[in-house]
Amino acid sequence: MALELLGKPVIAALKEDLIGRTEALKAAGVVPTLAIVRVGEREDDLSYERTALKRAEGLGIEVRRFVLAEDAGQDALMDVIAQVDDDAGIHGCLMFRPLPRAYDEESACEALDPAKDIDGIGRAALARVFTGRGEGFAPCTAAACLEMLDAYGIDVAGKRVAVVGRSLVIGRPVAMMLLERNATVTVCHSRTQNLEETIREADVVVLATGRAKAYGAPCFREGQVVLDVGINVDAEGALCGDADYEAAAAAVGETGAITPVPRGIGGVTTSVLMKHVVESAEKTVF
Amino acid sequence: MALELLGKPVIAALKEDLIGRTEALKAAGVVPTLAIVRVGEREDDLSYERTALKRAEGLGIEVRRFVLAEDAGQDALMDVIAQVDDDAGIHGCLMFRPLPRAYDEESACEALDPAKDIDGIGRAALARVFTGRGEGFAPCTAAACLEMLDAYGIDVAGKRVAVVGRSLVIGRPVAMMLLERNATVTVCHSRTQNLEETIREADVVVLATGRAKAYGAPCFREGQVVLDVGINVDAEGALCGDADYEAAAAAVGETGAITPVPRGIGGVTTSVLMKHVVESAEKTVF
Repeated sequence: MALELLGKPVIAALKEDLIGRTEALKAAGVVPTLAIVRVGEREDDLSYERTALKRAEGLGIEVRRFVLAEDAGQDALMDVIAQVDDDAGIHGCLMFRPLPRAYDEESACEALDPAKDIDGIGRAALARVFTGRGEGFAPCTAAACLEMLDAYGIDVAGKRVAVVGRSLVIGRPVAMMLLERNATVTVCHSRTQNLEETIREADVVVLATGRAKAYGAPCFREGQVVLDVGINVDAEGALCGDADYEAAAAAVGETGAITPVPRGIGGVTTSVLMKHVVESAEKTVF
Repeated sequence: MALELLGKPVIAALKEDLIGRTEALKAAGVVPTLAIVRVGEREDDLSYERTALKRAEGLGIEVRRFVLAEDAGQDALMDVIAQVDDDAGIHGCLMFRPLPRAYDEESACEALDPAKDIDGIGRAALARVFTGRGEGFAPCTAAACLEMLDAYGIDVAGKRVAVVGRSLVIGRPVAMMLLERNATVTVCHSRTQNLEETIREADVVVLATGRAKAYGAPCFREGQVVLDVGINVDAEGALCGDADYEAAAAAVGETGAITPVPRGIGGVTTSVLMKHVVESAEKTVF
């Protein structure tokens, strides 16, 4: 069977690094602080929030929650973002998305101070990912894919990478970050013809469509590296990725590797979020 | 032989549209005006400048040239850009690049008012291309590729497109614009393994590396559409593209199509530049 690319060792290594940096910040009088902005009570958001709170606690990072009722309205949300922007004690902000349908998500993303945009939701951060110019943090899930590759010593230079999905949260940014690492990147999506064939030709596959178990044996071949970014719930109510894990792991075989869901990319994303908070705090001090 | 995708009819159609719009602007008291900023006397720049002056004249667009000596220095250049930014009578600015080595090109690009950045050189414009959010003009050469496809009724949705080259002037922006049109886009570059095979698999190929006649028969197959963005000088001193034209045209055959160099994309780029000047002027009036 394929090598399992687990989040655990990556998270442990990040933790070791971040604990020291958090202590140094506290010695300098700064407690690295994350703001979480949540609108409504979506189960996905609550689950991510619980993980983030626990992870932050383990690292000595403070979390301040700003919770709005689902029908609080755009003005209330914009007020909260202004409060986050104005508070020098907050170093980074995680706003759960998608926002409920009635909200103007783009305006909310653009209102956040780019210096606190640790999840790369605004144009300034995304411009940095696209152009390599300026300042800004990459979206955490995209950055988590690269942390995973780095931790397992997987070099993408010159290799074919298929990114399936083209969202601004993960598909497009991770494509640009892999291109920056000299991969030959193909961005696939719902309109792609011969999708299975295109995925199968790649050396490295990033699945980021949020379609439970949608990618099975015909998409994979011996020796591929599969990063499964999807976090979905299957028919039995269990967490699962975009890949049909058993089929994919069998297809990529002993020379291949695949991230499971859960225990794969998801947990690394939370650690990257904390890393970005610490980096942002460091910029205010050192 | 392959269908020749010529710039001429595309330029003529753009001209017909723009003349009417220029007249409407003048009737409203505004003369659409392009600033050209040139540092030094590079032959490429002078050639583009001559074409732009002629094209502008034919459309009733005014051009103001700001010419600096090659050794004028960054401060002098920044002063010129500030002058362009401050002048309400200027609607768009073309700054020739690359700047001589001693200059900080990124700072110069970012100093230009995004509203006048009609060639998409600053981060705001590039962020628009990447995210689809906000305002801004795409780099003219990238936009010219789409004008050419549109003029010849070539739909890229669902098709495989190989973009060879990953510059911010053309490769990355055109890749994002084709993705927006639902193409399955692969970005290739100097580090791509099996480059010829990757190009040959695509339905549409955009060559944008600036390597004279570098792509020959092994890169192409029957039925492909080839957009050759390169403008190079061959060993005999004649203009040529990135493709070995004769070999490529023969390989793509009667069901294929290819842009020649010259007489292809280059001239359309100049017309797109004028279109952006007019659009920018219209925003100040209507």
